[in-house]
Amino acid sequence: MRDPRYDILFEPVRIGPVTTRNRFYQVPHCSGMGHRYPEADLSLRRMKAEGGWGVVSTQETEIHPSSDISPSNQQRIWDDHDVDRLKKLTEAVHEHGSLAAIQLVHNGIHTANRLTRIAPYGPSDMVVDVEDPVQARAMDKADIAAFRTWHRDAALRAKRAGFDIVYVYAGHDMTLLQHFLLQRHNSRTDEYGGSFENRLRLFREVLADTRDAVGDRCAIAVRFAVEELLGADGLQHDGEGRDVVAALAEEPDLWDVNLSNWSNDSQTARFSQEGFQEAYTAFVKTVTTKPVVGVGRYTSPDAMVRAIRSGVLDLVGAARPSIADPFLPKKIEEGRIDDIRECIGCNICTAGDNTVVPIRCTQNPTIGEEARKGWHPEIIPSLAKPEAVLIIGGGPTGLEAARALAQRGADVTVAEAGREWGGRVTKEAKLPGLATWARVRDWRMGQLRQAPNVELYLDSPLTAEDVLSYGIRHVAIATGARWRTDGVGRLHRSALPFLSGNAVVGVDALLERGTAALSGNGPVVIFDDDRYYMASVLAEMIALSGRRVTFVTPASIVAPWTDHTLEQRRVQTRLIELGIDIVLLHQLGDFRPDVLSVECIYSGRRREIDCSIVVPVTARLPVARLWHDLSARAEVWTDHGIETVERIGDCLAPGIIAAANYAGHFYARKLASAQNEGCDAYR
Amino acid sequence: MRDPRYDILFEPVRIGPVTTRNRFYQVPHCSGMGHRYPEADLSLRRMKAEGGWGVVSTQETEIHPSSDISPSNQQRIWDDHDVDRLKKLTEAVHEHGSLAAIQLVHNGIHTANRLTRIAPYGPSDMVVDVEDPVQARAMDKADIAAFRTWHRDAALRAKRAGFDIVYVYAGHDMTLLQHFLLQRHNSRTDEYGGSFENRLRLFREVLADTRDAVGDRCAIAVRFAVEELLGADGLQHDGEGRDVVAALAEEPDLWDVNLSNWSNDSQTARFSQEGFQEAYTAFVKTVTTKPVVGVGRYTSPDAMVRAIRSGVLDLVGAARPSIADPFLPKKIEEGRIDDIRECIGCNICTAGDNTVVPIRCTQNPTIGEEARKGWHPEIIPSLAKPEAVLIIGGGPTGLEAARALAQRGADVTVAEAGREWGGRVTKEAKLPGLATWARVRDWRMGQLRQAPNVELYLDSPLTAEDVLSYGIRHVAIATGARWRTDGVGRLHRSALPFLSGNAVVGVDALLERGTAALSGNGPVVIFDDDRYYMASVLAEMIALSGRRVTFVTPASIVAPWTDHTLEQRRVQTRLIELGIDIVLLHQLGDFRPDVLSVECIYSGRRREIDCSIVVPVTARLPVARLWHDLSARAEVWTDHGIETVERIGDCLAPGIIAAANYAGHFYARKLASAQNEGCDAYR
Repeated sequence: MRDPRYDILFEPVRIGPVTTRNRFYQVPHCSGMGHRYPEADLSLRRMKAEGGWGVVSTQETEIHPSSDISPSNQQRIWDDHDVDRLKKLTEAVHEHGSLAAIQLVHNGIHTANRLTRIAPYGPSDMVVDVEDPVQARAMDKADIAAFRTWHRDAALRAKRAGFDIVYVYAGHDMTLLQHFLLQRHNSRTDEYGGSFENRLRLFREVLADTRDAVGDRCAIAVRFAVEELLGADGLQHDGEGRDVVAALAEEPDLWDVNLSNWSNDSQTARFSQEGFQEAYTAFVKTVTTKPVVGVGRYTSPDAMVRAIRSGVLDLVGAARPSIADPFLPKKIEEGRIDDIRECIGCNICTAGDNTVVPIRCTQNPTIGEEARKGWHPEIIPSLAKPEAVLIIGGGPTGLEAARALAQRGADVTVAEAGREWGGRVTKEAKLPGLATWARVRDWRMGQLRQAPNVELYLDSPLTAEDVLSYGIRHVAIATGARWRTDGVGRLHRSALPFLSGNAVVGVDALLERGTAALSGNGPVVIFDDDRYYMASVLAEMIALSGRRVTFVTPASIVAPWTDHTLEQRRVQTRLIELGIDIVLLHQLGDFRPDVLSVECIYSGRRREIDCSIVVPVTARLPVARLWHDLSARAEVWTDHGIETVERIGDCLAPGIIAAANYAGHFYARKLASAQNEGCDAYR
Repeated sequence: MRDPRYDILFEPVRIGPVTTRNRFYQVPHCSGMGHRYPEADLSLRRMKAEGGWGVVSTQETEIHPSSDISPSNQQRIWDDHDVDRLKKLTEAVHEHGSLAAIQLVHNGIHTANRLTRIAPYGPSDMVVDVEDPVQARAMDKADIAAFRTWHRDAALRAKRAGFDIVYVYAGHDMTLLQHFLLQRHNSRTDEYGGSFENRLRLFREVLADTRDAVGDRCAIAVRFAVEELLGADGLQHDGEGRDVVAALAEEPDLWDVNLSNWSNDSQTARFSQEGFQEAYTAFVKTVTTKPVVGVGRYTSPDAMVRAIRSGVLDLVGAARPSIADPFLPKKIEEGRIDDIRECIGCNICTAGDNTVVPIRCTQNPTIGEEARKGWHPEIIPSLAKPEAVLIIGGGPTGLEAARALAQRGADVTVAEAGREWGGRVTKEAKLPGLATWARVRDWRMGQLRQAPNVELYLDSPLTAEDVLSYGIRHVAIATGARWRTDGVGRLHRSALPFLSGNAVVGVDALLERGTAALSGNGPVVIFDDDRYYMASVLAEMIALSGRRVTFVTPASIVAPWTDHTLEQRRVQTRLIELGIDIVLLHQLGDFRPDVLSVECIYSGRRREIDCSIVVPVTARLPVARLWHDLSARAEVWTDHGIETVERIGDCLAPGIIAAANYAGHFYARKLASAQNEGCDAYR
C-alpha cells in the first residue's frame, strides 16, 4: 500500500534510552484544554497516537505555582496532585504504541502569576512581558537553587507519570532558561550573567539536573529557539543561536529546534511557505550527532522526505499539520495521500488557545471535540436506516455536511446556485496570501467525488417550490451570507444613510470581480469594523493594483483579532510597507463626493479624507430567503415527504470558516442520531 | 453600641414573599470565581452574610449554553448538574441569616459562546459586541419560545437550589432582554420590534414567566439600567429608561436600578463621587411602590441614611464597598464606624474578573482568599508565643504587615525613613483624582494607633548595622521601589543612553515635588511604557499646570490596562480634552536638546517632537540596598538574636498597591504559623 519513497518516514529512531517507531513527531503544542479540561486534552493526544504519530507531546507544563500563566489552559505538574491526571494521558498515548513527551516549563518573566499572585522570577528586575502591571524579581542564589529543585522534582514526577521523553525548554521567549540566556533580559553581574557561558550556565545546569534525575529511563529533549528574527537584538542562527547548540551539542538526547517567538515559529500561510524554518535550523545537524526534530507546517510527504534526505531533520515535527489531520502518518502509511486533510496555515488553532478555550481547526471540525462530543476525525457512526438529504449550498458548510453524511451512508444531493464549488473559500483563496485556503474545498471535493452516494449539481439555484417538489426527506440550507454595505458592524449599530450611494463598493463585489469592481482611479478608503483579516487583505489587493488606499478603523490597531492568529504585527507592517495610510480609532461621520469625514471615537473630532470609493468591511447578513420561504410553508412539508429543514452555517449566523465547517459537520453528526445535545456536550 | 442615627439601616424590608433583616444589600457582582472555583465563590458570599449584608447575591448566572461567556468565570445554572453547587452556596448564606439572590442571565449578543460554539442569540442579525469574529442570529419565534423556556427552567432550578430572590436581568448592555429593548440593537419588524411596547414585550413576558414559575416562594427582582450615558443613542433616565420602570412598575417585587454599561455603573473614584448614581435613579421610587435598591459606592453610613431618608432608595446596594469590607454592616451595627475599611474606588476588583482570575482588592487583601488560604477579613490566628518584629518601611506593605501582626499579638516596631506614613499611597493620593487612595494609609494608621503593641517611628532610616544592633527576632524589609529614569520597561529592555541628561525628570521627582520638578516652561513629553494609570495622571497634572504635554506610548491606546478597571475611555478622553497630544504605537529613538525622536513600532519610521523635558514612566527598581547589606551578613544574624529577615512588597518585586498590601498581609499570616504554603494554597 505504502509508496516505497516514503519508507524512510517509517524508520524507527533511537532517542537516548527510548526508540520511536517512526519519524512523525508531534511537537509540544497548546490545546486550550490542558489541566482545565483534562479528559479533553487526553483524548486529543490519544487521537494523535492512534493516527500514527510516533511521539506525542503535551503542551507546556508548568513545574511550579511561580510559573502560572492563568487563565491560559496549559498543563501543570506543580506537585503530586497532578501526577494521576498525567499518568492517564501517558497510558492513552502508550495504548497506541507511541512515546509520550512532556514539555516542562518555567515561564520566568512571561507570566504575571495572576492566579497564584507570586512575584514572578527573572534573571533581573524587570517588567513581565505580558500586559499586567507586574514586575519580576531578580533571582538570588537561593531562588536559583529553588528553581533547580522544582525542575528536578517535576522531572521525577513526569517519570512517575510514565513519560518517555522529558523536555528542557528554552524557547519562544517564554521560558526562564531563555530569559537567562538573552542579553536583553539578563543584566546580572554574577556567574549567571555577562559572558555567553555565564548566561548559558543555568540552562546547562538544568539540563544536567534533568539527565541526572530521570535520564536512566527517559530521553532528555531540549526545545530551543535558534533564531528570533530580531537581528542583533536577539538570538541569531548564525550567532549565539548556533553557539548554544554547539556548546550543548551532545548533552541532550534530542534537539527540538525552532524560531522564537511564537509568532515566528507558527507563521501563517499568508506570510510563509511549507518548510520555512529550514533556512534557520539546517545547521543543527552539522554540530550535533543527536537526532534533530524541527517544524515548518509540513503536510506533504515529499517535503518531509526531502527534509530528512537533505540532512536537515531526523524527525518531522508537526503541530498544526497534526491538528488538521491527526491521521496524517497513517494515511501516508496506507498509501492514501489524497486523503490527507492538509493544514491551511490560518492559525485558528492558536486563536483557540489565545482566547482561552479549547482548540479548533478550519480543516478538522472534530479537534477539541473528541471527549465532550465523542467525535473521531475519521469515523462517524453510520445511519441506522437509509436517509436522503438535500443540501443547498456548496460552500464550506454544505460540502462538509455532504461529505460527513456520505460517510454515514446517506443519499446526498448537493445543489449549488453558482458555477463553482467552495463558496467563500474559493473566492477568498484568490486574495493575496490566502491560496492555501482552497484546501478546505479541495479536500472535501476529493472525498465527495469518490463517494458513490453523492450527487453534485452546480448552477442550480432552488426556490422553495423546487425544494418541495423534490420531496427529499431532509433539507439542509447552507446558502451562506453576503457582506453588508450599510456600515453596520460593531460600532455603527444602525445603517449609515450616507453609505447608500454608488461610490460605495461592497466586499462581495471585490471578491467576485477583484479590483475591476472599483470604477475610476481615485483614492479608496477601506473602513474596517470587522477587525479580522478581510479588510487588510482587500487593502493589500487594492494597493497592489496601484491605487491610493486609506485604511480607517475604530480599532486601535489594524486587524486586532489577528493578534490571536499571531499575524497582527506582520499585517500592519505589510500595510505600512505598501504605502497604505492608516487611520486608527475613527468611525465614519459623513461621505460627500470625494470627501469622507471620519470621527475620533473618543472626542468625536472630525477629519476629512480624500475618497472616491468607500469599501465598508463591517459585517454580513445571512442569505436566508430560501429558509424564510420554506419556513412560511412548514405546514406542507410533510405532504411533500419532507421531515426536517434546517439552516446551517453562515445563513444562520455568519462566522469564520472554521465555524462554517463545524456547523456542517455537526449537522451531519446529529441527523437521525443520538448525538448528545445535552449541556454536557458543551461544557 | 449603635448610633441611633443609623437605626434606619437595620430595619427589615419586605420584598414580595421574603423579608430581609436590614437595608444592606450586596447586589450581584462578579468574583472572577463563579462556577470555575465554586468553593472560593461560596466562601466569599458566606463572608458577606457573616458580615451582616441582609441580601447576598451571586454574580450573573448563565441560564443556558447559548449564553456562555467563557473564559470569564461567571456562575452557571445550565441544567440540574449545576443545582447542587448552588445549593451549597445558598445554605452558606442562610447560615448567617441572610437572603440569597441569584441573577439569572442570558447574555444575548454580549457573548461569542467561545466554549460552547453555539451561534449567539440576538434580536437581529448582528455582530456580537465582544471582540470575536462571531455574529448573532436574529431569533425567530421558535428561538424566543426556547429562550423563555430556558429562563423559566433556570428559575425553577434556582428555587430548588434555595434562592430567596430571583433576578430578571436587563442591564449593562450585556443581556438579551436589554438588547431587545434597545432601538440600536433591535431592528425587528414583528411584534418584538419597532414600538416601545413591542421592544419591551420579551422583558415583560419573561418577568411574568418568572413570577409564574417561582413567585410563590421567591421574590422576583428586576435589575435594570435606567440610563446609558449615550444621549439619544441609548436609554435615558428621563426617556425610555423611565418609561420602562413606569410600564413595569408593580410587576417585580424589587427594582435594582443602575447605569449601563458596566464602566458607567462601576465608575472609579477618579471619575465620580459617592452617590453618583442618585441623579439618575432618584425618579424610580416616584413611579413604583416596590422597594428600590441602587448603588453608588456608598461607604459612609451618613450617606446611606441620607439616600433612604431623601426617598431615593429603600435598600443600600453595594458591590465594591462590600468587597473592601465584607463586615461593613456589622461595624455600623456595633458602632465601630472608624473600623470600616472604605473602598477607594480603584476597580482592581473588576480587573480580577476582567483578567479571568479571582477577585482582589486594594483595601481587603483577604478577598478571594477565603477558601484556598482560609483567610477571614477580620480574624487572624493569634501567635502561639510572643514574637517581636521590626518592619522597615511605612508604605502599604509595611503598614499592613504591622497591622496584621499587631492583631496577631506580636510586638511590632515600624521604622519609616521619611517624614510621613503611607509611602507611595500618600504621594499618589495628591495626584488628580486619586485622593481616596489615602484611605489605604488612613485605615491602617487608625488601626495601628489603637494598638498597644505597636511602636511607630518616622524619620528613621536604618542601616544594616542599626538592624543588627536592635536584635529584633524578625525583620521585614518593606522599603519599596523607585521609578526608573533610563527608559527600561516593556518595550525597551536595555537602558537608553540618550535619557541620561538632566532634561529627563523621573516619576519620583514629580511625586515628591509636583510640577515644581520641571524646570523652564517648555513642552513636556510623557513616555508611557508602564501602561496603567500613572502616566496619564501625571500628564493630567502637568497639563493642568499650563504646560504643553505630549503623551507618547508604544501601546495602541492610552493606559491600556485601565480597560480592566473600566476607565480607559474616560482616561483617553480626558487627555484629549486637556489638549494633550497623543502619539500611539511609538517608542523612543533619540533625544537631543528640545527634540525627541520617536519611532513607529511597526515600521521604525521616525518623527520628531518638540520636547524640553522627557518623563519616562516605564518601570520601577526595588529599593533593596538594606536587604542586600543584611543578606551579606546573614551569618551574624543569629549572634544578634535575629531569626528571619524577609523582604516584602515592592522592594522584592514592584507591583500595584493591592499586591503590596497582599504581600504585607501574607507575611503577617505566615510568620511563625502553619499557613499552608503548599501548591493547594495557590490553585
